[in-house]
Amino acid sequence: MSEFSFIRWIQSQQRSSASVLTPAGDDMAVLRWPADELLLAAVDQVIENVHYDPAIHTPFQVGQKVMNRNLSDCAAMACLPAAALACVALPKSRGQEYAQQLYLGMKSAADAFACPIIGGDTGSHQGPLVLSVSILGRSAGITPVLRSGANAGDYLYVTGPLGGSILGRHITFTPRIALARDLATRFRLTSMIDLSDGLSRDLPHLCEESHVGASVDAAAIPIHADAVALSQRDHVSPLEHALHDGEDHELLFTSPDLIPDVTCIGRILPGPAPTITITRDGTRSTLRPGGWEHQL
Amino acid sequence: MSEFSFIRWIQSQQRSSASVLTPAGDDMAVLRWPADELLLAAVDQVIENVHYDPAIHTPFQVGQKVMNRNLSDCAAMACLPAAALACVALPKSRGQEYAQQLYLGMKSAADAFACPIIGGDTGSHQGPLVLSVSILGRSAGITPVLRSGANAGDYLYVTGPLGGSILGRHITFTPRIALARDLATRFRLTSMIDLSDGLSRDLPHLCEESHVGASVDAAAIPIHADAVALSQRDHVSPLEHALHDGEDHELLFTSPDLIPDVTCIGRILPGPAPTITITRDGTRSTLRPGGWEHQL
Repeated sequence: MSEFSFIRWIQSQQRSSASVLTPAGDDMAVLRWPADELLLAAVDQVIENVHYDPAIHTPFQVGQKVMNRNLSDCAAMACLPAAALACVALPKSRGQEYAQQLYLGMKSAADAFACPIIGGDTGSHQGPLVLSVSILGRSAGITPVLRSGANAGDYLYVTGPLGGSILGRHITFTPRIALARDLATRFRLTSMIDLSDGLSRDLPHLCEESHVGASVDAAAIPIHADAVALSQRDHVSPLEHALHDGEDHELLFTSPDLIPDVTCIGRILPGPAPTITITRDGTRSTLRPGGWEHQL
Repeated sequence: MSEFSFIRWIQSQQRSSASVLTPAGDDMAVLRWPADELLLAAVDQVIENVHYDPAIHTPFQVGQKVMNRNLSDCAAMACLPAAALACVALPKSRGQEYAQQLYLGMKSAADAFACPIIGGDTGSHQGPLVLSVSILGRSAGITPVLRSGANAGDYLYVTGPLGGSILGRHITFTPRIALARDLATRFRLTSMIDLSDGLSRDLPHLCEESHVGASVDAAAIPIHADAVALSQRDHVSPLEHALHDGEDHELLFTSPDLIPDVTCIGRILPGPAPTITITRDGTRSTLRPGGWEHQL
């Protein structure tokens, strides 16, 4: 299958959208942007053997994952996804069905949030699959929640249990867009980030951008059943998994308000030094980053 | 060097921009979009050993190329670049200096058009470099020129000499944004595409989208000196290079107007069948696609 017959197949999968004047197929897509809405933009990729295992994960799942990673960024800003662009470097000879399944996985995840895929680029090479999605978001009535607004005294919340995502949730997670927008409508959210690198790495990002510190109560951290299951295999404690595992894609956020239905795991401390402490069994220590980080 | 210290270095390179409210560093960048301007979006990648040769090309040049490919898409729509996102899968251990040079090459190309790089994603893996850029464009007073508006009788133009870009121009070309906007202001441009896959492949795209045919006069095609130089090596005629070589990144467009300073190479014929003919030495034949196409 050639690149252009693949593009033609993609075009056959697309529905028209009021805001998309010219969809995939021209040099660029053309969109009408709503007046008085901020435009948000980000890009995130999945790389074979880094973010997924081709022996385990189907191309449909890989497509879902890359799109959901981007949708989770929209959740972290409390915006609505507006449009996505996809770019794939495909291992040679993996063929038509594989490329189509990647697209259908991306489309399945995007359709859940009515987000059209408006363009892309397809290439093939002698190397592993690299698939990236760029996403556009619109503020749609809610001021974007940045990482930089946390204040001393704010409560620190997470939206769900953490740890052990490697057992499967890193592929199948649900972006918390609806929850983020509901929370942002009802409460004062001062900062927010999605947990992609792990709590012990993402909390410092939030604290650094906000010029604050934080104290975390280990006993309050909600621990996922997957963290317990993984602990039984590798003898790393469930708490360590909850603190350091990546790709939970729950939201970590701060608010001066007491908020039910989400879990308060600590408080924001005065800055400027982003000192982050964790209290376990009555003993306070510094929380050191233990999550995943790419080394260049 | 870690991913995050690289992000911090990138942040130190960035200047503030009135329309970019939150630049790289949060989950998403936040932009204010001008009222009454259409938003255009596209993505394009370069892959090691496919789009460049790591033994020849510097990372600075690779960064320039991927950005210029995207800026050339803006030219093809006659829009202005507004913002770019970059995504790189970097071969492990290539190191800090290499990643920085990629960024500086992208920035150099983008700065020439005052286009800020507002976000990105960096990963490393065991495999070749894959670098993609997504670009946002704004119509800025000019209706985007699509591929689909060519009419029978229109003149067919190219903006510069073709062929032999492999000798170096595929890396160093200048996106024709200023020329495209100047032409679109002064004349009726009915369709436009940038020549990335080669005239014999890109003209059919334009004809198919416009539901027209075309006749090309071989003698009128401007042939680049690089096509002549390459011909002396490989004994493929300069005309064949001009017709089939990719990555010229000149513009191919149609207009009912007689336009000076660009080269008329043929006429648009009635559709719907996108029959494309070429006349050489008085003999007319079908122009068959001979340029580059990725096979999946």
